[in-house]
Amino acid sequence: MAQRSYQVDYQLGACDANIHTAWNKDIEPARTVEPGSVVRFECGNVAGEDITMGTTVDELDLTGEPEHPLTGPVAIEGANPGDVLEVELLSFQHKGWGYTLFPPGEQGRGLLPEEFPDPGLHVWDLEGDVGHFVNGIEVPLHPFPGTLGVAPDADGDHDTFPPRSVGGNMDIKHLTEGSTAYLPIEVEGGLFSIGDCHGAQGDGEVCVTAIEAPMFVTARLSLRQDMDIEQPQFQTTGPFTPTGSDEPMYATTGISDDLMDATKKSTRHMIEHLHEERNLSRTDAYLLASVAVDLKISEVVDSPNWIVSAYLPESIFPN
Amino acid sequence: MAQRSYQVDYQLGACDANIHTAWNKDIEPARTVEPGSVVRFECGNVAGEDITMGTTVDELDLTGEPEHPLTGPVAIEGANPGDVLEVELLSFQHKGWGYTLFPPGEQGRGLLPEEFPDPGLHVWDLEGDVGHFVNGIEVPLHPFPGTLGVAPDADGDHDTFPPRSVGGNMDIKHLTEGSTAYLPIEVEGGLFSIGDCHGAQGDGEVCVTAIEAPMFVTARLSLRQDMDIEQPQFQTTGPFTPTGSDEPMYATTGISDDLMDATKKSTRHMIEHLHEERNLSRTDAYLLASVAVDLKISEVVDSPNWIVSAYLPESIFPN
Repeated sequence: MAQRSYQVDYQLGACDANIHTAWNKDIEPARTVEPGSVVRFECGNVAGEDITMGTTVDELDLTGEPEHPLTGPVAIEGANPGDVLEVELLSFQHKGWGYTLFPPGEQGRGLLPEEFPDPGLHVWDLEGDVGHFVNGIEVPLHPFPGTLGVAPDADGDHDTFPPRSVGGNMDIKHLTEGSTAYLPIEVEGGLFSIGDCHGAQGDGEVCVTAIEAPMFVTARLSLRQDMDIEQPQFQTTGPFTPTGSDEPMYATTGISDDLMDATKKSTRHMIEHLHEERNLSRTDAYLLASVAVDLKISEVVDSPNWIVSAYLPESIFPN
Repeated sequence: MAQRSYQVDYQLGACDANIHTAWNKDIEPARTVEPGSVVRFECGNVAGEDITMGTTVDELDLTGEPEHPLTGPVAIEGANPGDVLEVELLSFQHKGWGYTLFPPGEQGRGLLPEEFPDPGLHVWDLEGDVGHFVNGIEVPLHPFPGTLGVAPDADGDHDTFPPRSVGGNMDIKHLTEGSTAYLPIEVEGGLFSIGDCHGAQGDGEVCVTAIEAPMFVTARLSLRQDMDIEQPQFQTTGPFTPTGSDEPMYATTGISDDLMDATKKSTRHMIEHLHEERNLSRTDAYLLASVAVDLKISEVVDSPNWIVSAYLPESIFPN
């Protein structure tokens, strides 16, 4: 895609002064910038230094409550409640590694905790545009910020885990380089933060993590007074498949009178497929589904049964 | 895609003897075929002859309970419960027109009946690979059968509206030419039927209809004794965007602690966008969303809030 050239106006490193782990409108801005400024953010990840290339799942202490370290907040001069923050995502730069992790099922995280009592981990070697999984499987990298948002107006600390109408932990895989997100501003200055970057993710992020990877992200922050939106919106050119063009996919359906149950069924059927037909352990199948399998709502009108389908791109497997 | 050549072994016209409007394992097969046979089906639509190119919504009697006319059933020699029917979708041929319709909201059909008390209709002129909407909007056609399935084992008549584990009204838009569906067989002979063809549809089919279009469908019916599946699965090469390659999309999110509510919100926000930014009436926006907007589950793990996003391909609008 043709991209406007830009120059970085401000940099925010991942030092303590620029990191926060809860949304709170009373956090002092790390920086105040003019609308239209380009800011380069250094973003960490939830595991911090606890995971490196050689880490195994048994070495991890998974008992604590995880926290997203977010870089920011950046105040935008003149931003007022009712305005919209336009975030043009200009570039991403990973640091050569990432991880995908799910905690023990008893913590109740992820889509299928009841089926995965034991935790799972894959540490990814990220080589340019590709992440290496097991068995020669290569997942193309299409980096995006799992979390980007502005401060909610409600007082006090707000957990970074759920996304809200102001954005936050949205985990929208198509917020890739060249995309633009629109976030409804609730407080003066907007107070934008970003982090939790992902090298790749499937729609749904079923195991609760993607390829969690520390990165530098460069974004242009502008104000839009002509937009009126209740929840985030965005423009993107994808990619909508790993290769950016039509390619073979294998899909499993989940059919149920409950949309969440249909979602779980389609994912279960996909894990079964990956296990039986692709010789992956069930743990690896769950990890891979979170990173590379897309959940689509096929139909939500053929009462009383809805269909969610899980799509696996076959191009990630070695020939 | 390179396609194996084939010759049609059997033809089933849309005459009364080959049409049924409920699933029932006791319906006499219209034809019994050998595994691997290629069958050409003529498929009607729910409205039958009631809608033609000039029809307006006021002329329609929308009080009755609609019925899908399905072509079949075809028994497959040697098919037994526990086998899987492989359906290779070889070709589609529309008849130059189709319609998209939603009934009055009081009937409770579609995703947003409470917001659309009055019915809506668009009759489509289908010209080759394109369907013409209002304001110069052109929707590329990617035909597929809304309904394909085998007979459920349970006794008696079964409504054709909900899909089931044996398939049926699945409305999976990616079951296009070149795709293969796998259906779990529950009764001797399988008893395959097909119909309810769509010229194009968005994932979700939010208003309750797609481009409903009578068509000829040619499919190869084979048996798989090596597969063990609980619900339908399929292989496809899409297309995953209208053009088959990455292209600009505008997306709205729905964020909620209930997945169905998130689905409704994302669709509402998209209808609002189409109305405000693309100058469509709300009725036309709902119709177009059903035919061209895709619902994806962005994340279903960031408890307690999930995100469904609605993606609009911008290539359908005139420059």
